[in-house]
Amino acid sequence: MALIVQKFGGSSVADRDHIFNVARIVADTYRDGNSVVVVVSAQGDTTDDLMEKAAEITHAPSLREMDMLLASGEQISIALLSMALGELGVKAISLTGWQAGFKTDRNYSKARIRRMETERIESELAKNQVVVVAGFQGLNSHEDVTTLGRGGSDTSAVAIACALKADLCQIYTDVEGVYTADPRIVRSAKKLDVISFDEMLELASLGAQVLNNRSVELAKKYGINLEVLSSLNPVPGTIVKEVVDMEGMLIKGVAKDVNVAVFSLIGVPDQPGVSFKVFSLLSQRKINVDIILQSVGRDNTKDLTFTVPLADKTLAESVLKDALPRLGAKDVKVRDDVAKVSVVGAGMQSYPGVASTMFEALYENNINIHMISTSEIKISVLIDKADADRAVNAIHDAFIN
Amino acid sequence: MALIVQKFGGSSVADRDHIFNVARIVADTYRDGNSVVVVVSAQGDTTDDLMEKAAEITHAPSLREMDMLLASGEQISIALLSMALGELGVKAISLTGWQAGFKTDRNYSKARIRRMETERIESELAKNQVVVVAGFQGLNSHEDVTTLGRGGSDTSAVAIACALKADLCQIYTDVEGVYTADPRIVRSAKKLDVISFDEMLELASLGAQVLNNRSVELAKKYGINLEVLSSLNPVPGTIVKEVVDMEGMLIKGVAKDVNVAVFSLIGVPDQPGVSFKVFSLLSQRKINVDIILQSVGRDNTKDLTFTVPLADKTLAESVLKDALPRLGAKDVKVRDDVAKVSVVGAGMQSYPGVASTMFEALYENNINIHMISTSEIKISVLIDKADADRAVNAIHDAFIN
Repeated sequence: MALIVQKFGGSSVADRDHIFNVARIVADTYRDGNSVVVVVSAQGDTTDDLMEKAAEITHAPSLREMDMLLASGEQISIALLSMALGELGVKAISLTGWQAGFKTDRNYSKARIRRMETERIESELAKNQVVVVAGFQGLNSHEDVTTLGRGGSDTSAVAIACALKADLCQIYTDVEGVYTADPRIVRSAKKLDVISFDEMLELASLGAQVLNNRSVELAKKYGINLEVLSSLNPVPGTIVKEVVDMEGMLIKGVAKDVNVAVFSLIGVPDQPGVSFKVFSLLSQRKINVDIILQSVGRDNTKDLTFTVPLADKTLAESVLKDALPRLGAKDVKVRDDVAKVSVVGAGMQSYPGVASTMFEALYENNINIHMISTSEIKISVLIDKADADRAVNAIHDAFIN
Repeated sequence: MALIVQKFGGSSVADRDHIFNVARIVADTYRDGNSVVVVVSAQGDTTDDLMEKAAEITHAPSLREMDMLLASGEQISIALLSMALGELGVKAISLTGWQAGFKTDRNYSKARIRRMETERIESELAKNQVVVVAGFQGLNSHEDVTTLGRGGSDTSAVAIACALKADLCQIYTDVEGVYTADPRIVRSAKKLDVISFDEMLELASLGAQVLNNRSVELAKKYGINLEVLSSLNPVPGTIVKEVVDMEGMLIKGVAKDVNVAVFSLIGVPDQPGVSFKVFSLLSQRKINVDIILQSVGRDNTKDLTFTVPLADKTLAESVLKDALPRLGAKDVKVRDDVAKVSVVGAGMQSYPGVASTMFEALYENNINIHMISTSEIKISVLIDKADADRAVNAIHDAFIN
């Protein structure tokens, strides 16, 4: 007798057969006596098809109109899933983002949820029926449709779970849970039964693309238990929650991120405030800087090296080149043939052996480390992209097998 | 400097090229200094494709979910048309039915507009931009999406024109206007420059499928000038308005309707109240009866013959068969191999020659008349379906050429 939010992505509702597969999962949950809210994405290629239609019209569409266009996708899948549930004898009602009470800010194409008005969902649940909600979309204060951007449907599901104080938010995917490494790269990767929010956040931001970071942050903030599980294989998935058994496996996973660019500012004056200037320039353009390395000063100058997301490479390059005179730097260099490989595990810093085990594994495989970054729960190294998969395997073998 | 509502159907926005064609028509109207509200239907086959998706899921979909599903179609076309207008340098904003203020009753799939809340449209027009509105859809008092049923986008356009007191409502189609007969049947059919609402209503209900009847009724009620014109050929169309030149061509058109079934109740007791019983039975089931013929009484019984829309044939048949004992009738017979052919023209009844000219034309072509019905502005005959096209040509020749 719990309140459960279940989220299914676009491939899970791609066609009639997939829709009925989802409907059966939902119907089983409902018939077990639970209240169920289902969040779905647009079917399979719908979003891509709609974007192609727009691209035929213009290469610079209004973001408002793009959101209007794309939001039609989930409207189709919620209606079809509700019909399928009806066909299985389960009473269901579909709600768009604006009907479900998602109030967002005005940033079309990457809106953030300001608040949830849950009256409608609650009144429909009270009628003892499944509520099928369009993910990825909301309504801003102009009463205009917005979309939440990448991973938006995960965020929609968790936001509903938070607002309704759900007992569990299940994120159905095409994998069976969170693994200690990408199973396509590491054959011996193991599924985790449980992982903490913080570890999941590190794994997500490090390129393990199972769960969107915004949704994990939200679940952590409101203390909602998440479960990542497969819509095709009915086995228990991975539970993501606040506190995880302190005595469990130290290392939770090894992740690789190839969407990284490394910048080096050469010959920066070795004086206070220079780093601040550089990174405030970048943060003004909303570019996130990750690993930072500062060379030891020499001839009154130093070199500043740091990584940014590959998607921001062009922007960062032009920002930095423009600023070279102002920064007093000699040159800026950029490369993107690199990868960030990380081990993640809570409490890692109290186990001094972790870093040396990692570096040893890399050394034994003759992999050169360019940069290192550590935190409470992770150690990341920047290496050549060509070495990345070998590195993930070597580190995984060293810690997990 | 007028306020003009323009409506384009699904084939007019079927693909990129058609959308830009529409955008150019709208842009020209806007650049001539007019305020423009555009109403569009779903693209080409979108509605059919969506209905097919639903049919794959269930053969008895919830009407609410069907409306949710189908309403996504216009949401796509309004976004794309707004983008195309932007690409042509015209500021435009799209509004769904619920954003545009269409408040309907709760009849999913064939909702009727209760009222228009025009604040949003007016505030967007005040920003000197084209407003692109999704036709066919509205919002009921549950805040649920409804669709207006057949011809709904015409009705949406006229409803906006009425609510905004527009100077003109242009209905763009794939023909150049209203013709004196279907040009596919009558080669010499002529385009009318002008026609009255009443004449248009008779032509529409008689099978000339240019304009939806609900929209003509609405325009007549609020005194909105309609124009029917072609989106592909930029020539003046046909204006539909209240008062038309009294001295103009007497006969406005010849129409045929093959969607007719004729019922005969045989051996009904020849006593008061029987007709009332029959027709109240049918009206309770919302079946419209058109031409009615009552035989002269004989042996204390009479025969009652009348036409109903072909779509209601099965329902009417079962209603009447069930009621036979109660009505005291002997039998009910039905046939649908018939057609109704009509001449329409205001003030016809003051010209006694019209009926005889029509009947003569049919007689000369050896076409047998089963039933006759006349009104202030039309004369209809029921004939064999096989004779219908010959009859339309013969009558058109007699009056118009």
